[in-house]
Amino acid sequence: MTAQRIDGKAAAEALIGRVTDDVARLIRDHGVQPGLAVVLVGDDPASTVYVRSKIKRTAAAGMRSFDHRLPGDVSEDDLLAIIARLNADPQVNGILVQLPLPKHISADRVINAIDPGKDVDGLHPVNAGRLSAGTAKLVPCTPRGCVILAKGVRGTLAGLDAVVVGRSAIVGKPLAQLLLAEDATVTIAHSKTKDLADVCRRADLLFAAVGRPEMVRGDWVKPGATVVDVGINRLALPDGKSRLIGDVAYAEAEKVAGAITPVPGGVGPMTIACLLLNTLIAARARAGLPEPMV
Amino acid sequence: MTAQRIDGKAAAEALIGRVTDDVARLIRDHGVQPGLAVVLVGDDPASTVYVRSKIKRTAAAGMRSFDHRLPGDVSEDDLLAIIARLNADPQVNGILVQLPLPKHISADRVINAIDPGKDVDGLHPVNAGRLSAGTAKLVPCTPRGCVILAKGVRGTLAGLDAVVVGRSAIVGKPLAQLLLAEDATVTIAHSKTKDLADVCRRADLLFAAVGRPEMVRGDWVKPGATVVDVGINRLALPDGKSRLIGDVAYAEAEKVAGAITPVPGGVGPMTIACLLLNTLIAARARAGLPEPMV
Repeated sequence: MTAQRIDGKAAAEALIGRVTDDVARLIRDHGVQPGLAVVLVGDDPASTVYVRSKIKRTAAAGMRSFDHRLPGDVSEDDLLAIIARLNADPQVNGILVQLPLPKHISADRVINAIDPGKDVDGLHPVNAGRLSAGTAKLVPCTPRGCVILAKGVRGTLAGLDAVVVGRSAIVGKPLAQLLLAEDATVTIAHSKTKDLADVCRRADLLFAAVGRPEMVRGDWVKPGATVVDVGINRLALPDGKSRLIGDVAYAEAEKVAGAITPVPGGVGPMTIACLLLNTLIAARARAGLPEPMV
Repeated sequence: MTAQRIDGKAAAEALIGRVTDDVARLIRDHGVQPGLAVVLVGDDPASTVYVRSKIKRTAAAGMRSFDHRLPGDVSEDDLLAIIARLNADPQVNGILVQLPLPKHISADRVINAIDPGKDVDGLHPVNAGRLSAGTAKLVPCTPRGCVILAKGVRGTLAGLDAVVVGRSAIVGKPLAQLLLAEDATVTIAHSKTKDLADVCRRADLLFAAVGRPEMVRGDWVKPGATVVDVGINRLALPDGKSRLIGDVAYAEAEKVAGAITPVPGGVGPMTIACLLLNTLIAARARAGLPEPMV
């Protein structure tokens, strides 16, 4: 039997639709229009594509969009000055600094400079701490998207064995916290894990976030498991073009899993949807309004 | 074969000895004497015993000790004013507010008011966030003590299967982060976990932090595992006295485990030792000096 293909694009469109509706309500009932500022340093082609897409979707959802493109040799001080201005700007509810930053700039210093109430990437230490304490409003977008997709398949995650492969600060660690908050039993595995295949085979919910193309094989998947593939690896093709592949060997895994996200079209679209959701949450919090019911 | 009994008292004395030596060096070479302020609200007997012991050990280690006892009906505002004064006092490097606080005071608000650089309990959201990011200096004392004891037995924890039973913000969650930083494969289990016994039986390192007397039975323990019991449950005896017992059924588990901490005399003594260590770390950071080599 072939696994259900989890349609991340449809789930993202549905979420963006609900966010868009709530933005319209917010403007109509409270005169509050959420605003997202995106800061791009340099001209990395992949980052440029992401940023363009974020800006387009922000505007389409009825939010204000602020676009800051800085040369690759901008100084850290100048970047921090821009962050300070965005922190102080009441029209800006969310600040997203596109990563990675050039080597001469400390990403830590920049992230720490963002007002935690505007940190729509959820990466500020205060937000990471609140996530651990279970009191976070702004949580990292990709992990939130993964949990929404998994809940779409399973309903509740309570009591399920979840395995997260990868322990990055952006995906693996916050994902583990979110799964724990959903009452899953959570295992974090990584490059030092013995018998990684065995650990994965225990998972009712398997999340791959390592950035290694097709590392997770079909026989690592427990029959019927829900597999969420966070990897977006660009594979160069002989003809000069490229193709995106995930961290999971999809063709193998879909024969075993109960449901699985494709790459592209799985987790990716959810990340932007959750960014818009975070901007809405930040705008509502700023206005002293309750969290959106989306 | 009976398990090795892990002597937490001896490990704690050894650590306190190294801290005491470094405090003497710090005073001699840099004129810096670390100081710890302990704040106790009310007169809960157990808390009073803990606080008295902390103050005694602080002084014995050559540090300044500041003792603030407040009536149980102190207002939150008055308590916050004291925290603000301690934050501003250059002789105070560490601030410990003994928990639990009376119901009319928000523990969250009080903890958030402590300068993160003086938060020797490691509970401030900024420190929780740094712990998750791997950049924390001040980490919660009991989890740090657990990791030191486990490393004392196993040398390295890299690649070992660690299971943490319990997901509190004070023990379970930070312990998981510390184990991950030691390259263990970490599972967090809790009250919603299916087949908790099965999950525990996978553990090379089993940490019990649930606060339920002898919940973890002998047949939950993998042969040869290292078992660290964080539970301190007070059992009333018929003669009016009481006895401390852990979360692990010691008599059963010691027949299966490779090594196990007793209660009392296991993790408990390490908590105070790590509190002194954190105060030393905070004092060194404040003086712009590197972390202690203890």
